[in-house]
Amino acid sequence: AALTHIDAKGEARMVDVSAKPATERTAIAEGRVLMSKATLALIESGQAKKGDVLATARISGIMAAKRTSELIPLCHPLALTKVTIDIATDEKLPGCIVRASVKVTGPTGVEMEALTAVSVACLTIYDMVKAVDRGIRIEGIHLVEKIGGKSGHYHAAE
Amino acid sequence: AALTHIDAKGEARMVDVSAKPATERTAIAEGRVLMSKATLALIESGQAKKGDVLATARISGIMAAKRTSELIPLCHPLALTKVTIDIATDEKLPGCIVRASVKVTGPTGVEMEALTAVSVACLTIYDMVKAVDRGIRIEGIHLVEKIGGKSGHYHAAE
Amino acid sequence: AALTHIDAKGEARMVDVSAKPATERTAIAEGRVLMSKATLALIESGQAKKGDVLATARISGIMAAKRTSELIPLCHPLALTKVTIDIATDEKLPGCIVRASVKVTGPTGVEMEALTAVSVACLTIYDMVKAVDRGIRIEGIHLVEKIGGKSGHYHAAE
Amino acid sequence: AALTHIDAKGEARMVDVSAKPATERTAIAEGRVLMSKATLALIESGQAKKGDVLATARISGIMAAKRTSELIPLCHPLALTKVTIDIATDEKLPGCIVRASVKVTGPTGVEMEALTAVSVACLTIYDMVKAVDRGIRIEGIHLVEKIGGKSGHYHAAE
Amino acid sequence: AALTHIDAKGEARMVDVSAKPATERTAIAEGRVLMSKATLALIESGQAKKGDVLATARISGIMAAKRTSELIPLCHPLALTKVTIDIATDEKLPGCIVRASVKVTGPTGVEMEALTAVSVACLTIYDMVKAVDRGIRIEGIHLVEKIGGKSGHYHAAE
Amino acid sequence: AALTHIDAKGEARMVDVSAKPATERTAIAEGRVLMSKATLALIESGQAKKGDVLATARISGIMAAKRTSELIPLCHPLALTKVTIDIATDEKLPGCIVRASVKVTGPTGVEMEALTAVSVACLTIYDMVKAVDRGIRIEGIHLVEKIGGKSGHYHAAE
Repeated sequence: AALTHIDAKGEARMVDVSAKPATERTAIAEGRVLMSKATLALIESGQAKKGDVLATARISGIMAAKRTSELIPLCHPLALTKVTIDIATDEKLPGCIVRASVKVTGPTGVEMEALTAVSVACLTIYDMVKAVDRGIRIEGIHLVEKIGGKSGHYHAAE
Repeated sequence: AALTHIDAKGEARMVDVSAKPATERTAIAEGRVLMSKATLALIESGQAKKGDVLATARISGIMAAKRTSELIPLCHPLALTKVTIDIATDEKLPGCIVRASVKVTGPTGVEMEALTAVSVACLTIYDMVKAVDRGIRIEGIHLVEKIGGKSGHYHAAE
Repeated sequence: AALTHIDAKGEARMVDVSAKPATERTAIAEGRVLMSKATLALIESGQAKKGDVLATARISGIMAAKRTSELIPLCHPLALTKVTIDIATDEKLPGCIVRASVKVTGPTGVEMEALTAVSVACLTIYDMVKAVDRGIRIEGIHLVEKIGGKSGHYHAAE
Repeated sequence: AALTHIDAKGEARMVDVSAKPATERTAIAEGRVLMSKATLALIESGQAKKGDVLATARISGIMAAKRTSELIPLCHPLALTKVTIDIATDEKLPGCIVRASVKVTGPTGVEMEALTAVSVACLTIYDMVKAVDRGIRIEGIHLVEKIGGKSGHYHAAE
Repeated sequence: AALTHIDAKGEARMVDVSAKPATERTAIAEGRVLMSKATLALIESGQAKKGDVLATARISGIMAAKRTSELIPLCHPLALTKVTIDIATDEKLPGCIVRASVKVTGPTGVEMEALTAVSVACLTIYDMVKAVDRGIRIEGIHLVEKIGGKSGHYHAAE
Repeated sequence: AALTHIDAKGEARMVDVSAKPATERTAIAEGRVLMSKATLALIESGQAKKGDVLATARISGIMAAKRTSELIPLCHPLALTKVTIDIATDEKLPGCIVRASVKVTGPTGVEMEALTAVSVACLTIYDMVKAVDRGIRIEGIHLVEKIGGKSGHYHAAE
């Protein structure tokens, strides 16, 4: 095995995908923001009223997905056809579970777009509660599922 | 306690910091990219030669720190005076430990800039090895240390 | 009727357009910048010489059309195939009439791109004359015509 | 009178503000999105539930304020210290009234930042309801109030 | 002959390419950064160790290629399928030779993307050594080769 | 001598400038676009009429100066206080001479901002005439003058 993003001289490159057909591809990624019970309660009370903490995080994640190729140096620019972000609060963590689902019809997959959306949505939640809770951690950012492309269907083991 | 980023109507806002003095502030954040032993070996062999995997991740993290206020909706734009990214490979994880250190002379802190730099550097490492390892996870993104500002020195408990 | 950009839970999403065919679509939008007669005369005398006020506004509008999906959270990124901006000065307003025409071959329309181009071109005219006229207003930003897509040809009533 | 953004040769320039002191400046701008009664009802029912239409517009406006100098060619980059967006629904219009308030401590004012925030928030509302209402118009984008700077306090006449 | 980017009124426009088929196109561009022998030696000693000067320049060039349509006002946005940057040090110049190769499947060519990648990679090298050498010059940025499109194969004369 | 942008481990970093005072700094840079006599005549005839070729290039250079820290990985973000671009046509070259002048009050200089402005303005001229002239070259991008900062006044030898 070798790293596709590194050429024979050991140098970074944006891989040539011009010979790959444009097919439909989906990726789903997930991550968690862990916080204190009291902090989560503040988000949830906000949620009961206007929900702006989670709405802000959702929007930031959707917008970040579209800018993935600006942030990740070797990612190809792609015309995404769908981005959704779901955020669930979970009192057992306690914290929030962020899940992004991204689609494209293109020559490469959208794992990085889904993972970037999750990461930025998690950071936005962090930003909004950091003044009341300094021990927040973002954990478990990973690919949940990937559909389409040469390598076929992938589903992370639980 | 209440969320500073949410006003009395429950709506998101960029907090008014115009009355806060511009003082020197530092933040250090950290995160980990967990992968298989074989994947880590590929990065390290690359590192021995030209090091482009980790160099690319470092650059992406530095550049992302500068774009934090574009990504995180309620972050204030800040003229950062220093950004460094250190990435260590660790065979016990196995994986990479990414640490960002950011400085500013300004009215607000730079936690989000350090955390964004770490997140994007981790995502870039992920991107460069994802073709050989689908089980990669980004874990433990958190604030390590914060110096300056009204709330004083903070150091995360080990 | 329901809002397509809001899902069943009431949450914002970028609509899935992956099943829609890529077809040619055009949108034309318009807006007006109202100012005093004296201010308009300054623009027109500039126009007689080098035209940099209107040239700057045209360029800003063309560039803004390309960044629509960065600005409008739920817009899909699209590879625009044409953007033109026409600006006419009108002494009866008095002021400027800005019209943008945008084309794409893609799964969604380009109304927002045309409207964003008009808005930013109007703001740029505002910026260039605001030092001499504080009562400027931007009015009547609307879709003039839309060609292509499932919903067919639309032409705004006069 | 002459246009400050145009030099003696008639060419656009970013004005030299290096000799101007950094002082606190505020700008408030406003605009309206006019739509049918039925469309407004859809936004308001959404508002009753989760409010994502207006929350999305607020976030887009705050983020756009921070990117003003990227969009408006001759605007100076500024480290904004506050951005808030208030959106009221008004059944008499019928439609939405968008108001932005922006602050900075700097050598130039923030009218363009407030006006850009209003414009983009209006465009985002437009985007979210355009599928059910094609006759939407954005009207009356103007400066409401300006505090600070050499020219002193300005308040638009009603 | 007439300038395609200027219409009959003498005004800038983004040319309509909607009727042109999407075909594979490649462009290769080159430029040089000239510096003193001592400065080049510093880069090469760095290169012997970790190579971060040239790695940073390579990454900056790849990322700039993707942002060409944001920088060059009348460029069409394109979904690039390949970007590589090669940098050779040359003791006879003395200095660095930067070469970019860009591919797309689209309705227009990618000369500007290759030239922008070269320019930004050259500027990044300049930035990293400017503190030790103020006489650096960037020279000879030009198109080397162009494949595909209506005008056929072009190869610059030596 | 050592490279300030590379640390003791040979790794790229954004240098810590937090201890440097904010002082006024100016940089002037220059570059040339060489083309055929016939191509230059096309620009000049355009210039006589509306001047959109050179106006577009000027605007692109001003806007690029503001985005320097996004393009050049280790550049500090700076709140520029002035950017001007002068473009002269020269029949002896034949071609265009582009000169940028940039100011800031900050802890670091603005050479890179002036050089980036020149580079992008040159690329924009290239873009607008490339369809009629494939042999265009960008030459001689260099720092002309630098005022302010610890290293004092610098003026390039003729």
